[in-house]
Amino acid sequence: MNSLYDVAAIGNAIVDVIAPSSEAFLSAEGLIKGSMTLIDEAHAEGLYARMAAAIEASGGSAGNTIAGVASLGGRGAFIGKLGQDQLGDVFVHDIEAVGGRFSGGRLDGHATGRCLIQVTDDGQRTMSTCLGAAALLTPEDVDPAIIEAAQIVYLEGYQFDPPEARRAFAKAAGLARASGRLIALSLSDSFVVHRHRPALLGFIESEVDILLANEDEITALFETDDFEIAAEACRGRAKIAALTRGAKGSVVIAGDQTLLIEAHPPEKVVDTTGAGDQYAAGFLFGLAQGRALTACGRLGALAAAEVIAHYGPRPQVSLKDLATQAGL
Amino acid sequence: MNSLYDVAAIGNAIVDVIAPSSEAFLSAEGLIKGSMTLIDEAHAEGLYARMAAAIEASGGSAGNTIAGVASLGGRGAFIGKLGQDQLGDVFVHDIEAVGGRFSGGRLDGHATGRCLIQVTDDGQRTMSTCLGAAALLTPEDVDPAIIEAAQIVYLEGYQFDPPEARRAFAKAAGLARASGRLIALSLSDSFVVHRHRPALLGFIESEVDILLANEDEITALFETDDFEIAAEACRGRAKIAALTRGAKGSVVIAGDQTLLIEAHPPEKVVDTTGAGDQYAAGFLFGLAQGRALTACGRLGALAAAEVIAHYGPRPQVSLKDLATQAGL
Repeated sequence: MNSLYDVAAIGNAIVDVIAPSSEAFLSAEGLIKGSMTLIDEAHAEGLYARMAAAIEASGGSAGNTIAGVASLGGRGAFIGKLGQDQLGDVFVHDIEAVGGRFSGGRLDGHATGRCLIQVTDDGQRTMSTCLGAAALLTPEDVDPAIIEAAQIVYLEGYQFDPPEARRAFAKAAGLARASGRLIALSLSDSFVVHRHRPALLGFIESEVDILLANEDEITALFETDDFEIAAEACRGRAKIAALTRGAKGSVVIAGDQTLLIEAHPPEKVVDTTGAGDQYAAGFLFGLAQGRALTACGRLGALAAAEVIAHYGPRPQVSLKDLATQAGL
Repeated sequence: MNSLYDVAAIGNAIVDVIAPSSEAFLSAEGLIKGSMTLIDEAHAEGLYARMAAAIEASGGSAGNTIAGVASLGGRGAFIGKLGQDQLGDVFVHDIEAVGGRFSGGRLDGHATGRCLIQVTDDGQRTMSTCLGAAALLTPEDVDPAIIEAAQIVYLEGYQFDPPEARRAFAKAAGLARASGRLIALSLSDSFVVHRHRPALLGFIESEVDILLANEDEITALFETDDFEIAAEACRGRAKIAALTRGAKGSVVIAGDQTLLIEAHPPEKVVDTTGAGDQYAAGFLFGLAQGRALTACGRLGALAAAEVIAHYGPRPQVSLKDLATQAGL
């Protein structure tokens, strides 16, 4: 089947605002380290005023993944909603500059979504997201031509939060299924899992070919403290589950197979923002290219290692070159 | 004399848009590596559309220096002009978040100035600046109370380009002189020197206590290829000249003294944007604190080494902590 895109993703279109932070600041702001919290505009303005000097970089989980796919030499499309403002221009530029396609549109009178990210000395990121225009994605924004032209349709779990986005998500899944495309889902965040557990489980069992999650998310989904139990519970529910465990590497479950994939050693750990998104980029790009599952996992690990060695959630060098150097 | 600020700076208020680039891209765009070119809005839009995915970070030479002074534990104020837009909000936030003061105001209907920075693999940066609102700084924007409350008034050579900014600059120099404050000038860029050589020379001889320049700029100023000749020519023209030579370190000329200061070895060279600005931050902070000239130069070298090891023109860690660790 001919495909114009390796991966088409639907997600929150977000610009990241990334600053160093102390543990004390997280406590004072009531932020839970490593989590993503949704905040409103007033809260975002207050938090921004109190946080440290920052850099801005296009982000959003699915957008980061599309940038990673492009950096690996793949073709990606991103569907999301932006404001008609400077940060919206930045987001579109950064997708198009890597050869990706932006679809979904811009909204006058709404600010582009932004994620205020506090990075502690251990490289952990704590995110406070003001969705702005991103929350206003509707089913009408999902262009069937893009879904039908993608090998893999990738959905971020964050889209379970805004009700209209969730309907957009369902439409995309339906179109993907009807045109025989693979459907991949990222669980995104353990709090998303807690908020939407039954709906996510139902969606996974009925629609998802490829499930991506980290250790916190997958154990939250199956309400266990034991990663092995959670991993086993994936078997049969999704055709493939790729589960990341930080420095412990990742585990791929597919049919009878259980593949253990080592983490790729990062140059250093500066900012873990985007690690899961880049793992997804490598894994999904590998799948779209017909690579074996172990190679897919190793591509994911390689991409994640690049992004955690610097500030910002997207690759700063060509992942294609890195993969070639690593013999992948 | 009591001072509220170690350094008050006047400069172009700019947000940097920083992306990796190839030598071929520089050639295709007619950009001269290592230089700063002024471009208009239409040119900026075209170049932005063609350049790679980027990150955004508050910049502007003098703004970077004030952020560095704050990171060293000093007090700084920045005078410049911004648009009433998201990038303007970013600039103000990033100065205030480090404890600096922003003065000069915001203009409706004008975009905040931005500098499109191409970073080649060797870490060199090539800058194309669309001044926007920054070019509209006027003498009225210079608050005498700020100038009079600063130990050192720091002016960037870039301000010789927009005519009104140059008048603002002259006003600040006059106020500083009248209130017995030290006046520091950065030459900013060799093309600025070529454009305004006689005016710069006149200003240096009549007004400047501390001259900051790199090798290209100081040789351009004295129309020689020989750094030693240029350095010698500084003697007597400014009370102090601090001349940077990249990996070769810096030379401080003051009266009869010639001090050679080694470069501080950077962790790695990623992006040299802001190296000169951070050298200025360390040097001027040291002077304001009454440190010996050698210590001032070493503080400058330390601050420059931090900033070239990462993308973005401002410190990402506390320079005060780094200085303490280095025994400075």
